[in-house]
Amino acid sequence: MAISFQQISSAMPVESAQIGYMPPVDNINAENLMSLVAFCQTKGFDFVVSPINAPGYRRVLFESDDPQSPEMMTWRAGQQAFTPEDLVLRTADHSDYIVGTISDWQNCDSPDTKVRLHSELALKQQFNWVSHLGLGGVMLPYPPSTEPLTNYGRVLTGALSILPYTTCWFKVPCMDEILERDVTEEAQGMKSWERWNSLRNMAGSDSKLGVALELSGALPSDAVLDRWFAEPVKVIVLPEDVFLTNNKGYPVLSKRHQHVVRKFIKFKPYFIISSSSFPKLTLDEFSDDMLEHSFASPHADYVRYLHRTQETPGVIDQFAVGYQDFLQAPLQPLQDNLESNTYETFEKDPIKYQQYELAVERALLDRPIPTNGEPDITVIMVVGAGRGPLVNCSLRAAEKAGRNVRVYAVEKNPNAFVTIQNMKANVWGDRVNIVFSDMRTWKAPEKADILVSELLGSFGDNELSPECLDGAQKFLKPDGISIPANYTTFVAPMASNKLHSDVATFKDLAHFETSYVVMFKAISLLAQPKSIWMFEHPNRTDIPMDQGKWALVEQLDNHHNVRSGSIEFTSENSGMIHGVAGYFESVLYKDVMLSINPETHSPGMFSWFPIYFPVKTPLYVPAHSQVVLDFWRLTDTRKVWYEWRVSCKMEGVGEIHSTPIYNVGGRSSSIGLF
Amino acid sequence: MAISFQQISSAMPVESAQIGYMPPVDNINAENLMSLVAFCQTKGFDFVVSPINAPGYRRVLFESDDPQSPEMMTWRAGQQAFTPEDLVLRTADHSDYIVGTISDWQNCDSPDTKVRLHSELALKQQFNWVSHLGLGGVMLPYPPSTEPLTNYGRVLTGALSILPYTTCWFKVPCMDEILERDVTEEAQGMKSWERWNSLRNMAGSDSKLGVALELSGALPSDAVLDRWFAEPVKVIVLPEDVFLTNNKGYPVLSKRHQHVVRKFIKFKPYFIISSSSFPKLTLDEFSDDMLEHSFASPHADYVRYLHRTQETPGVIDQFAVGYQDFLQAPLQPLQDNLESNTYETFEKDPIKYQQYELAVERALLDRPIPTNGEPDITVIMVVGAGRGPLVNCSLRAAEKAGRNVRVYAVEKNPNAFVTIQNMKANVWGDRVNIVFSDMRTWKAPEKADILVSELLGSFGDNELSPECLDGAQKFLKPDGISIPANYTTFVAPMASNKLHSDVATFKDLAHFETSYVVMFKAISLLAQPKSIWMFEHPNRTDIPMDQGKWALVEQLDNHHNVRSGSIEFTSENSGMIHGVAGYFESVLYKDVMLSINPETHSPGMFSWFPIYFPVKTPLYVPAHSQVVLDFWRLTDTRKVWYEWRVSCKMEGVGEIHSTPIYNVGGRSSSIGLF
Repeated sequence: MAISFQQISSAMPVESAQIGYMPPVDNINAENLMSLVAFCQTKGFDFVVSPINAPGYRRVLFESDDPQSPEMMTWRAGQQAFTPEDLVLRTADHSDYIVGTISDWQNCDSPDTKVRLHSELALKQQFNWVSHLGLGGVMLPYPPSTEPLTNYGRVLTGALSILPYTTCWFKVPCMDEILERDVTEEAQGMKSWERWNSLRNMAGSDSKLGVALELSGALPSDAVLDRWFAEPVKVIVLPEDVFLTNNKGYPVLSKRHQHVVRKFIKFKPYFIISSSSFPKLTLDEFSDDMLEHSFASPHADYVRYLHRTQETPGVIDQFAVGYQDFLQAPLQPLQDNLESNTYETFEKDPIKYQQYELAVERALLDRPIPTNGEPDITVIMVVGAGRGPLVNCSLRAAEKAGRNVRVYAVEKNPNAFVTIQNMKANVWGDRVNIVFSDMRTWKAPEKADILVSELLGSFGDNELSPECLDGAQKFLKPDGISIPANYTTFVAPMASNKLHSDVATFKDLAHFETSYVVMFKAISLLAQPKSIWMFEHPNRTDIPMDQGKWALVEQLDNHHNVRSGSIEFTSENSGMIHGVAGYFESVLYKDVMLSINPETHSPGMFSWFPIYFPVKTPLYVPAHSQVVLDFWRLTDTRKVWYEWRVSCKMEGVGEIHSTPIYNVGGRSSSIGLF
Repeated sequence: MAISFQQISSAMPVESAQIGYMPPVDNINAENLMSLVAFCQTKGFDFVVSPINAPGYRRVLFESDDPQSPEMMTWRAGQQAFTPEDLVLRTADHSDYIVGTISDWQNCDSPDTKVRLHSELALKQQFNWVSHLGLGGVMLPYPPSTEPLTNYGRVLTGALSILPYTTCWFKVPCMDEILERDVTEEAQGMKSWERWNSLRNMAGSDSKLGVALELSGALPSDAVLDRWFAEPVKVIVLPEDVFLTNNKGYPVLSKRHQHVVRKFIKFKPYFIISSSSFPKLTLDEFSDDMLEHSFASPHADYVRYLHRTQETPGVIDQFAVGYQDFLQAPLQPLQDNLESNTYETFEKDPIKYQQYELAVERALLDRPIPTNGEPDITVIMVVGAGRGPLVNCSLRAAEKAGRNVRVYAVEKNPNAFVTIQNMKANVWGDRVNIVFSDMRTWKAPEKADILVSELLGSFGDNELSPECLDGAQKFLKPDGISIPANYTTFVAPMASNKLHSDVATFKDLAHFETSYVVMFKAISLLAQPKSIWMFEHPNRTDIPMDQGKWALVEQLDNHHNVRSGSIEFTSENSGMIHGVAGYFESVLYKDVMLSINPETHSPGMFSWFPIYFPVKTPLYVPAHSQVVLDFWRLTDTRKVWYEWRVSCKMEGVGEIHSTPIYNVGGRSSSIGLF
């Protein structure tokens, strides 16, 4: 089957595993190339990896040559084409089935001027040939880590422009074994990432450059592998000798390798089975048996099996298809009225309303039954009722708790209010009073015992829950309670080549000073999230107690909803910071929680994706350094906004990096109060 | 005299010293403000520095207040204007004579939420008042270095937009004395710079933010002061107690202070004499004597004296007026024909042609006089003769050396050739043959003993001297010599807020990938320049010796003129890298040199300014870290270009910063070969 490797740089999901075969470079020549293609097609591979050049092409280093030899001078002047002997890929035949590999004998960083120059010229000649053949993909060799990478990086960066339609995969071993013997496996794994990171930074994160990650028998730790999930890993290379043989004689992977491969399958990479043997036979010499009666490659079969038996995606994953790593503007429910299908989507969450129902039930059960003969009626006000799900929760909770309730449903969106009216007419009846009003300005006919709201955003307070509930708490009894009782915002420094590139495509500062709601996929957290601030409801802050109860004082301003935090993280390994991941945890009532913080995430809840705050210039973080995230939630009379800053410091050195303050005065993004 | 402080942010030179007076903050109130103005005008000050607010305004911190007090709530809501008692500057009277100071009791980084918020509100209220009064300048307090600066930085950054017409001077002590006692003076001086750098980076290098550097009795080392020369130091504050008293009773500065002040005078800052005493007297109470019979301030007089007696600018400085820190595109003499006044300018250099004359004379003297009866005639070819200055040098040298010469003057610029024709007709006569041709294609009638050229650019080879002389050396005898014999390129990491800002105004990548010829002024080298590569003429590289003499082989390509270098520097102190400074040294003949490398600069020579290679995002360099500069000189069949990259590494940590590779493939800037 012919495939186009251009897919790799697009967001198109590859639906079944795409698997290629890579024989040993030295075993392939122009004579047996067609055997290789026939072999791979018979074995069911989707593509084949072949050297572009024959080993003899190494002659252009002219190592022992007279520097004035006419051949060398003509070649240096670019006046000598490839001879047929130089090439394995001599024609464009099967070019849609072949990925090329660039020769690994080149050494652009050699101390020898001639080797350096000739390596560069050879690399460019190969790139030009790849472009001429129209190959979709090309593999770039990984220079030994004992050598610098700077000139190679420059040559590659320049050569990328020769290849408008080809993606380049830098073939990186997952463990850089060329290091000194006494280094830890952790360091070997990080070294590979460091080499890639260095090359990528030199190339200015060119989107044509991706990674072909080669797994080995020894694998790096999860923490190290995690870095790769934030990188454009387009290919996983599996050498045949990484496979074990099961008791039926079939190749299988160890548990740990399975685990790692399964993790990468989510990113839909190409797979390459790299083999240490392939017969040097022409198509004529190739036994007919071998081609006609052969079965599919058992290694490829095994990878297809892993792909097929990937665990069924959970509710969140099903919901998330199409949303992964997609930048969305956060909702602005105060400024804009939500659409019906937005309500519809969120009402489907299987967990969120269970938790609300439980919270209301517990709160009702905790209320003392009046002993003075007064009727046992609890006034519940649902503020921001939308199409009514929290009203339903409240009614079910009351039934379960066996308590009487009088429910008010307050909603400002005229379109949602249509549904509420229908609900009252057809379902709720007298148990529910419906009110068309903004909760901040409503004059309530009585005071509430319980205020129920669902105004939280991915960052907790970013949909202005604090401001709305400030208004609503005016009609809450002094001993009344709010569900949610509080919410806490969490942040963590993160890497994501993909998200950063996507923001960069807008080519302006404003998009780097905006936060995005994103279903994270190709990201890596550099440290576990930490809390930066909290809001509690009802808001008793700064308000004096009046005979053991709290007095509600009308605030003239919104300064009490200003927050700031400066949080320090230790990054155990090195990494790049492309921005900040934001989450929230909320206590609805006592131990009834909602959370999208990874460590405490409510299982199965999908109503909120995390939030992403970018930085304009990514920051490199050395291992064991401290990352400081400064965040502010600020306000004026018309809007609320966030400002942020990321810096990095090292013990004994001080601050080594810092960004400017982003979104000063809310100049690029804010949430309107009206 | 009324002055406009907006001048400060423009490039307008201030012709005489502009000196202000700053009394102790606590001694000034609304009542004696007019005495102060009258006093300063009588004493000949150009402006006065006054607090904006009375000390009582500190009340808005409401430190011991009931948080629900109506006054506090109204103020927080922004609904309370300044009372007259809050203000020293109550009206816009004399606002063109007054610089305001922001109160220093504010603490935007207090751990107390209320103090933090109220400090921010107070600062904004003051900024709004400054804007209303239309003050031209305002001084910002320096928070104690024991405290963080992050929130202050954010508040200031946001507040700068309130002041469209006012420049803000962050008042920085040149030694931060609040550090622990056991730190070195070097560290105290660097700490001040670090604090400023931190604030500036948070504000994204806003051009409205400058420095008022306060000198003290103890001064930092020259290395530390050097950092400040790359910063926007707009004001030098001289406390009266820094002055000594000479034997006539007048205030004078120590030799070291004079030296430092003289260095800063070149940057034309404002000066402020800060006094520790000023009488709390109203204008009525002020003795008439004091105002009418007073003499000019002896401190101001002394500063004016230093200003007046600034050493006479040297030839270079005279020439440089108007060129300082001005970004110029390098010359492209191969692509464009130089204009007459460009030749005129360069021919005025008093040193360059002296050195050429000396080099030719020495070379002639070194030539053996023929003993075989052949005539003693040396063939000198001046290639790129321009309007003829090197022909004149050669003729004068021949006369001095007492040797016979036959001179050829080869020039490709038809306009310059008109002058050469006149010179031949009127001055040179038969001694000189004039040739209208590109030296690379000229078919010479005989071979030369000495090839003389002046094809050097600021970066040595950046005006394509190597390529031109490759062509010309075809008609050089095997034992002939080239003047210059070689040239070496030097680079150094540098800081310059000014140059970087100027490149940034173009708002594109291309201008960051271009080099600029600049007469450096407001810059600081982070380390001494080091050589990265050299060219020698005639070019014997890679060319086999033929019976003890070298054979000239026609090159088919230009790869032998490719160069690269990776040079490491140690930065003793911390600093910012805004780019790379480039220089050259050239050996004309034996010990006759030309140099613009600061350490060996040919005294009085002005023909070349240094060259500036910018980086897009400035890099912070911690003290004692290694800065690596990678440079490439690259070529194809049509052009020559440079690529560069800056990185920073630390021992035991590795690379902590790196830029992408700039100007890949010469995409943004190059020098045409035709």
